[in-house]
Amino acid sequence: MSWLENSLMARKGLAKGQAGATHSLTEAEQGTYHYVYGPYVEPVLRVDPGAVVVAETHDAFEGAIKSESDNPLEILNFPYLNPQNGPIFVNGAEKGDTLAVYIKNIVPRGPQPVGTTLIMPDFGGLVPTKDTAMLNAPLPVKVKKLHVDAETGTKWSDKITLPYVPFIGTIGTSPEIEAITSLQPDYYGGNMDLPDVGIGAVIYLPVNIKGGLLYLGDCHATQGDGELCGVALEHPTVTTIQIDLIKGWTIPTPRLETEEFIMSIGSTRPMEDATRMAYRDLIRWMAADYGFDEIEAYMLLTQCGRVRLGNMVDPKYTMGASILKSYLTP
Amino acid sequence: MSWLENSLMARKGLAKGQAGATHSLTEAEQGTYHYVYGPYVEPVLRVDPGAVVVAETHDAFEGAIKSESDNPLEILNFPYLNPQNGPIFVNGAEKGDTLAVYIKNIVPRGPQPVGTTLIMPDFGGLVPTKDTAMLNAPLPVKVKKLHVDAETGTKWSDKITLPYVPFIGTIGTSPEIEAITSLQPDYYGGNMDLPDVGIGAVIYLPVNIKGGLLYLGDCHATQGDGELCGVALEHPTVTTIQIDLIKGWTIPTPRLETEEFIMSIGSTRPMEDATRMAYRDLIRWMAADYGFDEIEAYMLLTQCGRVRLGNMVDPKYTMGASILKSYLTP
Amino acid sequence: MSWLENSLMARKGLAKGQAGATHSLTEAEQGTYHYVYGPYVEPVLRVDPGAVVVAETHDAFEGAIKSESDNPLEILNFPYLNPQNGPIFVNGAEKGDTLAVYIKNIVPRGPQPVGTTLIMPDFGGLVPTKDTAMLNAPLPVKVKKLHVDAETGTKWSDKITLPYVPFIGTIGTSPEIEAITSLQPDYYGGNMDLPDVGIGAVIYLPVNIKGGLLYLGDCHATQGDGELCGVALEHPTVTTIQIDLIKGWTIPTPRLETEEFIMSIGSTRPMEDATRMAYRDLIRWMAADYGFDEIEAYMLLTQCGRVRLGNMVDPKYTMGASILKSYLTP
Amino acid sequence: MSWLENSLMARKGLAKGQAGATHSLTEAEQGTYHYVYGPYVEPVLRVDPGAVVVAETHDAFEGAIKSESDNPLEILNFPYLNPQNGPIFVNGAEKGDTLAVYIKNIVPRGPQPVGTTLIMPDFGGLVPTKDTAMLNAPLPVKVKKLHVDAETGTKWSDKITLPYVPFIGTIGTSPEIEAITSLQPDYYGGNMDLPDVGIGAVIYLPVNIKGGLLYLGDCHATQGDGELCGVALEHPTVTTIQIDLIKGWTIPTPRLETEEFIMSIGSTRPMEDATRMAYRDLIRWMAADYGFDEIEAYMLLTQCGRVRLGNMVDPKYTMGASILKSYLTP
Repeated sequence: MSWLENSLMARKGLAKGQAGATHSLTEAEQGTYHYVYGPYVEPVLRVDPGAVVVAETHDAFEGAIKSESDNPLEILNFPYLNPQNGPIFVNGAEKGDTLAVYIKNIVPRGPQPVGTTLIMPDFGGLVPTKDTAMLNAPLPVKVKKLHVDAETGTKWSDKITLPYVPFIGTIGTSPEIEAITSLQPDYYGGNMDLPDVGIGAVIYLPVNIKGGLLYLGDCHATQGDGELCGVALEHPTVTTIQIDLIKGWTIPTPRLETEEFIMSIGSTRPMEDATRMAYRDLIRWMAADYGFDEIEAYMLLTQCGRVRLGNMVDPKYTMGASILKSYLTP
Repeated sequence: MSWLENSLMARKGLAKGQAGATHSLTEAEQGTYHYVYGPYVEPVLRVDPGAVVVAETHDAFEGAIKSESDNPLEILNFPYLNPQNGPIFVNGAEKGDTLAVYIKNIVPRGPQPVGTTLIMPDFGGLVPTKDTAMLNAPLPVKVKKLHVDAETGTKWSDKITLPYVPFIGTIGTSPEIEAITSLQPDYYGGNMDLPDVGIGAVIYLPVNIKGGLLYLGDCHATQGDGELCGVALEHPTVTTIQIDLIKGWTIPTPRLETEEFIMSIGSTRPMEDATRMAYRDLIRWMAADYGFDEIEAYMLLTQCGRVRLGNMVDPKYTMGASILKSYLTP
Repeated sequence: MSWLENSLMARKGLAKGQAGATHSLTEAEQGTYHYVYGPYVEPVLRVDPGAVVVAETHDAFEGAIKSESDNPLEILNFPYLNPQNGPIFVNGAEKGDTLAVYIKNIVPRGPQPVGTTLIMPDFGGLVPTKDTAMLNAPLPVKVKKLHVDAETGTKWSDKITLPYVPFIGTIGTSPEIEAITSLQPDYYGGNMDLPDVGIGAVIYLPVNIKGGLLYLGDCHATQGDGELCGVALEHPTVTTIQIDLIKGWTIPTPRLETEEFIMSIGSTRPMEDATRMAYRDLIRWMAADYGFDEIEAYMLLTQCGRVRLGNMVDPKYTMGASILKSYLTP
Repeated sequence: MSWLENSLMARKGLAKGQAGATHSLTEAEQGTYHYVYGPYVEPVLRVDPGAVVVAETHDAFEGAIKSESDNPLEILNFPYLNPQNGPIFVNGAEKGDTLAVYIKNIVPRGPQPVGTTLIMPDFGGLVPTKDTAMLNAPLPVKVKKLHVDAETGTKWSDKITLPYVPFIGTIGTSPEIEAITSLQPDYYGGNMDLPDVGIGAVIYLPVNIKGGLLYLGDCHATQGDGELCGVALEHPTVTTIQIDLIKGWTIPTPRLETEEFIMSIGSTRPMEDATRMAYRDLIRWMAADYGFDEIEAYMLLTQCGRVRLGNMVDPKYTMGASILKSYLTP
């Protein structure tokens, strides 16, 4: 028996965590990809709770960086970056509900080398940016194209092989009236770049508008904490998710569940505030759903809370705060 | 002769800073007010450069807080806050151009008391918020309604009278594909809450999309640096602006000009980054338009640069960095 | 009659703000200058409340940068930077008291050009530093030596003349058991680099240890908000201060008074926290000494509070929050 | 064969990572504990490289919180908090060298319950503090005293048992001329509160002054990432360390080595800057000692770097950035 049968998705979801009909979302079926999370486009799919969606995602550059000699400054056309599949309208979803998205699988697709990472001006964790504005000359542009194999991983160099530990870099629901660049993580999810959003996890996303309007894209073959230079190992994929709907469970920001832990996710600046957002929501979750006193949860997390840095390069930084399920018994 | 005749607006604008046709934008003419800065609605006006627009603005609560016994938690309906007039389509404006908006006048309108300030949970500079998340109990809700007189100011208490020094709290252009809450300041302007955006100033705003799509609202009768509790002395007004168009002058973020100084405006978190944004843009402006070497400008601003804190309470903090015009001669 | 006769110093000080004996503190009398604010050295002077001290201060580089061709990287010897006069033991001062320091005069001294500003790696507001660590190459070193005249100011270039508006960049008392680099501003004062600490102002400093142990140095001939490149117009001076002692008035961080306003000063990172420190202390001061309700003060400062950025380059950033005295009547 | 034989300590240390003479540092032998990291006290021990020191550490409250009904506000006497053993003078150590400290063992000592955690005003990650100053009422004081058993861990409640995973919360060398509260982490180590500083790890600390002057204390029986409420499970211990000396290896900030990874540690505010410090130092370390090109290391860490949050409650936040040794082969 899988842990999923005891997941919040299974216990609270309308489809009880069971898979329903499968929907295909190929490049052709998607048609236009999207660069904002918002309500101003028509859904590409309308599905019932339980739906399985098999989506062909693009990499963050929509495949435009084809070789190591390509110059991203000439090729990329801001703000048309980080293309997203969707939006998927979930029947029955209304403001105040929560979508549960179980990540069933992620596999690379397309002609190799499909992996791309690069350095470009005004972007990255250890360089000046538009926000952390400085006068120094930028680092030189550099592109790396790498073969990504779901079995053997990625050969970074003769001596270093990185495992294939893929996850969805950008996933979320639509804001109610805003339409926000898919480069940004926020209260609805978005570009969190958090490696925990990988195969086998369930991510919970607040529904802000009828149908929820789920978007996703930007899968990474692997990524370190912080996505330091700003560009993980980006790659196009076939990503399979299962969507459930939890009525009347209202969450302010994304949450995540795996077999071992539950996690709250905060995205803002500075990074201590993202951490505060994540930890406070975790405390409130422990209080609401697991019977903890808030102060008791605060003191317990002081002893056993865990923090994962997602990104330190996007318009908002992302932090996940988690607790092992084995401690969720006040 | 007014300094305006030598302003950047006069020297660079298509209308040479001269007033053209006057357009009225009453509540009735505006019809629906807007809560996002974005391109997904029809313009309410289409004007030529030089146009004068007389707009009836609402206060940030759309007049819903009518007495000191009103409870904002029951009345306000997030995200439908900070209603904006517009968008105004400026004929000829294209991405990469700049709008110049000269603020001719601001006067209070409507039945007294028109001024509103208040304290509510999760909002303000010295309390926990959604981002700076904490566990403490919020301060009690408190509403103050005050008479605002353009001549005599506002009697805060028997002994304290605040002068009427109004400015436009929220003004900006539309993003290209984003639609962002009018509560936020950003690269296109928005909710900067910067007192320098007052009568007699010219604010320069980047055009991100055809027509520019100018929005404005949220006038304050007076405000201290930082808008500390989150709510200045909000009031509905008749605001008169004159719009000019500068072709081919591309600015990354808002700039401002008065008789005495030029200012660059940065909005982000943390506050040091907002300051960096403002100062770096000012240096680049001094280099591009006034002939300074960048390093020389950096060292000169070290001796005579001036910084104004706009808000420390909105989703992004706003800082203005300025230099007296008398120093703009390298 | 001077406003000083109604200052807090005059009303609360043991010497009632009256000048007492004058003490000289020439370079020779000072002997060794100090590079930390701490209690581990002998006082260079012991004075009574009311004492006037005439101190020969060094510039922040102790005069070692003598020409524009000097290379600070070869000359400066960290941590032996920012030499301080003192410590001055104030008879009767005990932990929990406050020193009042009235700044009577500052004049340049020594062979011209006495003014120095410079750019060096890892230091400054718009470059990577030890803390805001990045990978970019530093800006080139650059030194400017400038003639400083107390009457005519400083000729920055053929066309730009900066006025002489000197202030004390670094002044404070000793911590109780810490000894902290004079490059840092903190709860006891130190390297605040706040232009308001100029001629005619009274700065109030917490006494943390018997005698208070007052240090000062690092006078600037002029400085913009933020001290952007990290080095204002540094110069050696003869600085004249008058010291008073306020028994039993305990302040957590420095405060300042001029004829027009009172100010609280906060130093920390990030900059919003420095602003919060300053504004919260100002509210508590208004409550304790002027009869305001704290919430009322919070709302009033929202309308009329003023913020001054001191430095954005030192180990902690400094912000002053002030209110006009004309509003100090609840 | 232990991995230690191939550690940097073994390969670079004067004692080649071999244990030398054992020195006892009982409470009695220590005598006065210290509350600052500084050079202004006499060493309590003088040892040769290789020395093993068995130190009786106090908890952060020096044992003063004896029961859950004790009120820390009445008992604790700031700044006399976080008592430290030492300083230990290491013969031969000079500025520019590095101390290697291998943590051999940590065991609880003293009468049970020896574990203490608590909530008190102005301290903690989810409450207002002296720096993140706010107006809200503090949380109520709360003290928990817990039995700590090195074998069975700590019974937090009937249902929750926390394992015993002790580490040294505060360890470091003396600054050259500063004396800084033991509550603060900084370039020399100090109160990092980083759980990786546990049994079996080697921490590398910069020598800033002759003899290095090693301090340590503040052991935690367990702690979550961030030390959320500000007080981990504090307990007195017998801590056994082995000290080696690496001549001529100059590091700017602490580094750490375990069997599996190497880590650089940054402490500052805001948290993104602490992360930048850690990652930049790790890149420079990879370049200097492992042959990586800096840009290559930057891009590799983007894919596999790991970040650990130490504390988010002390005067500076602490972040560790690490890479698995298996990737250290460019």
